[in-house]
Amino acid sequence: MQLPSSLLENAVNEFSKLPGIGKKTALRLVLHLLKQEPGEVQQFGEAITRMRQEINFCRRCFNVSDGETCSICSNALRNQRLICVVENLRDVIAIESTQQFSGTFHVLGGIISPLDGIGPDQLNIESLVHRVAQEGTEELVFALNPNIQGDTTIYYIQKKIKHLPCKVTTIARGIAFGGELEYADELTLGRSLTNRMPIDNYI
Amino acid sequence: MQLPSSLLENAVNEFSKLPGIGKKTALRLVLHLLKQEPGEVQQFGEAITRMRQEINFCRRCFNVSDGETCSICSNALRNQRLICVVENLRDVIAIESTQQFSGTFHVLGGIISPLDGIGPDQLNIESLVHRVAQEGTEELVFALNPNIQGDTTIYYIQKKIKHLPCKVTTIARGIAFGGELEYADELTLGRSLTNRMPIDNYI
Repeated sequence: MQLPSSLLENAVNEFSKLPGIGKKTALRLVLHLLKQEPGEVQQFGEAITRMRQEINFCRRCFNVSDGETCSICSNALRNQRLICVVENLRDVIAIESTQQFSGTFHVLGGIISPLDGIGPDQLNIESLVHRVAQEGTEELVFALNPNIQGDTTIYYIQKKIKHLPCKVTTIARGIAFGGELEYADELTLGRSLTNRMPIDNYI
Repeated sequence: MQLPSSLLENAVNEFSKLPGIGKKTALRLVLHLLKQEPGEVQQFGEAITRMRQEINFCRRCFNVSDGETCSICSNALRNQRLICVVENLRDVIAIESTQQFSGTFHVLGGIISPLDGIGPDQLNIESLVHRVAQEGTEELVFALNPNIQGDTTIYYIQKKIKHLPCKVTTIARGIAFGGELEYADELTLGRSLTNRMPIDNYI
């Protein structure tokens, strides 16, 4: 695809670096921006640049934040002794949108995955162990994706804090609401039988 | 969806103004940018802002251009007496990528569509008529989408230039290559029979 202007080509190239955006979609987006007022487009460009340059990561939980401590860690209404351990920011947002969790978070920044070359040292695990010891945390809830890497990470952290008086739990695993038994995989269905729950939890 | 940072929220809002990009996709793109180097993200923001602020439109054909005249109009190898009339920039790019057209373009900036409130005065029609008269154009090829608005626009322009010695043609309409007769609409199939062509044009 040959473009009649190098400025246009530059913008299309930058857009097509984004995940899931190919050359054609990039061109469509750029042509849309070309129809907008220059001021609006400048606002778009600046919002992105500023976001990356000025954003902070909470020094306690590694959530993104406008200041040094994030809005969750500095909220006195939240249970500061309950920590939900998640892989990344997207999981924080997903859990926050349920409005069912009143504790704080700890963002690991990934999960242990030797095949991808990610070991415990590259993740925010040391700081989590330190935090649990310092803050007298009462419960760690692991909300990691249910797969081998997630389980490995849970196992590793659990071993690191087993000398501390902190309860360790994980989010419930089982058949999803609205799911159908016949399409559930055997592992999920099998475990949901083993870990069956009293019915009064659910009605 | 509640986001933990106003900078992040701002960037997500800006992205979700783009066509076909909702809040979830916008968040995915922003989180991707958050993982990139600040310098790269700045480059992205600047490419977009610069593109909108510094881009020119060719004063002859209204194609986008880095300078005052676009690369097609200033190319001596192209037939300057053959003008292909298109609706917008996207059509220029589509035709250029076929590498089958050696003339120049004229970008109307839309088509006549009374229902959408677009009349001839809002389009680059006056300048086209002027151009045909001034430059001694030999042929105008209309490459507009085959629908009522396209046909109206062709009819209007044709009337405006009928006193000039300029041939007027349109791109061929018919069954697309790789298309199947049984799925073609009746209008296309009917007209392709009426306008049947000698076979030696196609083999």
